[in-house]
Amino acid sequence: MKLLEERIIKDGVVKEGNVLKVDSFLNHQMDVNLFHEMGLEWKRLFADKKINKILTIEASGIGIACVAAECFNVPVVFAKKAQSINLDGEMYTSKVESFTKKKVYDIIVSKKFLTPDDHILIIDDFLANGCAVNGLIDLINAAGATVEGVGIAIEKGFQPGGKLIREKGIRLESLAIVESMDASNGTIVFREQ
Amino acid sequence: MKLLEERIIKDGVVKEGNVLKVDSFLNHQMDVNLFHEMGLEWKRLFADKKINKILTIEASGIGIACVAAECFNVPVVFAKKAQSINLDGEMYTSKVESFTKKKVYDIIVSKKFLTPDDHILIIDDFLANGCAVNGLIDLINAAGATVEGVGIAIEKGFQPGGKLIREKGIRLESLAIVESMDASNGTIVFREQ
Repeated sequence: MKLLEERIIKDGVVKEGNVLKVDSFLNHQMDVNLFHEMGLEWKRLFADKKINKILTIEASGIGIACVAAECFNVPVVFAKKAQSINLDGEMYTSKVESFTKKKVYDIIVSKKFLTPDDHILIIDDFLANGCAVNGLIDLINAAGATVEGVGIAIEKGFQPGGKLIREKGIRLESLAIVESMDASNGTIVFREQ
Repeated sequence: MKLLEERIIKDGVVKEGNVLKVDSFLNHQMDVNLFHEMGLEWKRLFADKKINKILTIEASGIGIACVAAECFNVPVVFAKKAQSINLDGEMYTSKVESFTKKKVYDIIVSKKFLTPDDHILIIDDFLANGCAVNGLIDLINAAGATVEGVGIAIEKGFQPGGKLIREKGIRLESLAIVESMDASNGTIVFREQ
């Protein structure tokens, strides 16, 4: 998606350790007009899929997922990263290793909100090693629901997450795939799509 | 806002300990069409204010804030609850006590995204004791930015947060104010607005 790639070039910052900072428009300050264009693009890309729900994970996936969900006219469910006293009853749970925070945490979704009738699009801001997405797929499988696809804003193509998900036969649409980046001069190369 | 009150009556569940569960449409599964109507209502209520940014706090405020931000045509910034290695540079910080999680945590916003030029609407899903909103107001004050108002989905009118914020002279628009609720029979009484 040219609009997103151009925005990454304009406002993204490459840092040491394979970190791409896009906090001015994607995951701290959030450009909701850009999110709307991203939602329309996913709607176009997944036009052949019957999607009745979007699943994401807190925190930075939620904004993108909610704005995109308006394009699909479906509700969003977000997986939570910690137990809260406001979550009662039965949960689906999985474990996720965070690339940015270097720790393992549990993710949970109430069983009320994932059912065998659900046809789900997973949405998240970043895909690197694929741990978060794989955790969400676990939750969907545990519910007997159907994964219709995965929509990612920025995939780090030099990390294995995208390959692993595509090898499972899951339709993955990343709106920008970073093939390589160089913190010494700030250059970013995108994969042709 | 009648639409929200009716939805709370229909799908909200009153639990012991002054807990109102609205996780089927507001803060776990999220009805983005309802969020859009809420955004339009805040846009109407704050029509006299020049708002250039919405500030919220992770996690459950983000979806509501992003959909509402489309109605205002402004970006969203969300305060984070923990230090991440992806957040560099200077931060504004404050401390918040969580009503639902019974603990104190730090909230942070990058100084890049709050400036003296900003005229900010705070958006959040719940207002109880007002700790989260007061933490956000602290961040805005520290930046020299202007608090134009606070938009809350559900205010618990029997807890002190709303009164404390209004006494500061800050314009607070809660779309539903729960005056009382009874876990024994599930009844909810709203304040007339």
